[in-house]
Amino acid sequence: MNRTYVHGYDAVESGRLDDQARTLEELLHHDTLYPAASRVLEAGCGTGAQTAILARRSPGARITAVDIAAPSLAEARQRLERLGLGRVHFAQADCAGLPYADSRFDHVFVCFMLEHLARPENVLRELKRVLKPGGSLTAIEGDHGSFYCYPQTPAALKVVRCLIDLQAAAGGDALIGRRLYPLLTQARFHEVQVAPRVVYADPGRPEWEQGFSRHTFIAMVAGVEQDAIAQGMIDAAAWRQGISDLEATIGRGTFHYTFFKAVGRKAD
Amino acid sequence: MNRTYVHGYDAVESGRLDDQARTLEELLHHDTLYPAASRVLEAGCGTGAQTAILARRSPGARITAVDIAAPSLAEARQRLERLGLGRVHFAQADCAGLPYADSRFDHVFVCFMLEHLARPENVLRELKRVLKPGGSLTAIEGDHGSFYCYPQTPAALKVVRCLIDLQAAAGGDALIGRRLYPLLTQARFHEVQVAPRVVYADPGRPEWEQGFSRHTFIAMVAGVEQDAIAQGMIDAAAWRQGISDLEATIGRGTFHYTFFKAVGRKAD
Repeated sequence: MNRTYVHGYDAVESGRLDDQARTLEELLHHDTLYPAASRVLEAGCGTGAQTAILARRSPGARITAVDIAAPSLAEARQRLERLGLGRVHFAQADCAGLPYADSRFDHVFVCFMLEHLARPENVLRELKRVLKPGGSLTAIEGDHGSFYCYPQTPAALKVVRCLIDLQAAAGGDALIGRRLYPLLTQARFHEVQVAPRVVYADPGRPEWEQGFSRHTFIAMVAGVEQDAIAQGMIDAAAWRQGISDLEATIGRGTFHYTFFKAVGRKAD
Repeated sequence: MNRTYVHGYDAVESGRLDDQARTLEELLHHDTLYPAASRVLEAGCGTGAQTAILARRSPGARITAVDIAAPSLAEARQRLERLGLGRVHFAQADCAGLPYADSRFDHVFVCFMLEHLARPENVLRELKRVLKPGGSLTAIEGDHGSFYCYPQTPAALKVVRCLIDLQAAAGGDALIGRRLYPLLTQARFHEVQVAPRVVYADPGRPEWEQGFSRHTFIAMVAGVEQDAIAQGMIDAAAWRQGISDLEATIGRGTFHYTFFKAVGRKAD
């Protein structure tokens, strides 16, 4: 799984995930608060960018964060300690087969994880197993097919398409946001509620142009340059043009992206 | 201009516009309220679907509604009288050259109008001319490029593309929502604020699946079937497949569309 993780594991990428987490925190996380003493599982915590937000916003919750990749877990642990949020329990585990008893957790949280899975429905069923009856699952995912911009050029769309195609080649689905409602209902979660969380940037919102358009979305696309060229999806000149066209929207055009936040409940 | 108005002028279309207006009223109009005695110009009122909302929500405002098409105006006048909102003043006028003195209006409102114009920037300048210094312009437009769905098929995207291409062939731009910020700032409106207004439908939101997906968006696409086939953009079988695929999202998938609401101010 490590080798096909589309975003890679290097330090630049980790820094990008930090920027993204800060910019998007209010938009995505303002309504996720877990009660003191509740047992919360974060499934697929990666390097802990979302874990830090969870731990800060729900300081009394007993958070367990798992990931399949040991290097990510080590970085996540360091991150949380550096931030004085060392109470999180980390464990290496495959979310398709968790080392936990049924009904172990009061709540489960997944963020930017399902997009990487070939069979998200299987993981959702496993997450439901470790969730107690009446407990909640919260899932946050993006949808790269929700992206558009102005001015919009074929070259700009092409580099975004490379990211989508690489994700698909790795067995994931970068268009998973639109599927959250069907996925959760098919996994038999109840009371499923999905809400789009829209990012809109224009020159009147420079914090979104910088924090999201440039340092989150374009940086994420730029991160797959070598893979896209190596796999013959695009040549270097077309790549440069596409990134340049995306950047040209900043300060004069508009930039659009939608995340999705879903909450479902395990039946009592 | 009449002959190239992409939505046509018949009774079915007028009914569709009624449904659309009711479903979307809260989403698009809840924050448009004009003070008593303020002079408001609605530019491009069509058959009055939005005019009725304006008049009901701002009962004390002195509304003038203009359109270039006499049949639409007649229908708008009837609609408002039928609804007991007969205080609106209607006038036939071309928004590119209005029969009003400079600074005549306190506020200007346009909704689903700029999308039909080859040169929206010219009309925006004319609207600014009749607006008093410090007055506001409000513009609401869709963006058909913001549409996506799940399941999403090439056939479904193809029929939506026909609508976009027909709009372009008629000199308009069905992707104008994303351009509102640049358009208003280039027309020298100040303090421009644009907000996306997102429609999201899934089986947990049946009122949106019916009111928007089926009776607004798919109905709008279906309305251009004859034109799309006549212009050789698509054949009848592919058309039926596309509409069928759009309808197949209802009750099991998801449906996504974004409107944009912009407000700008004329400098003092």
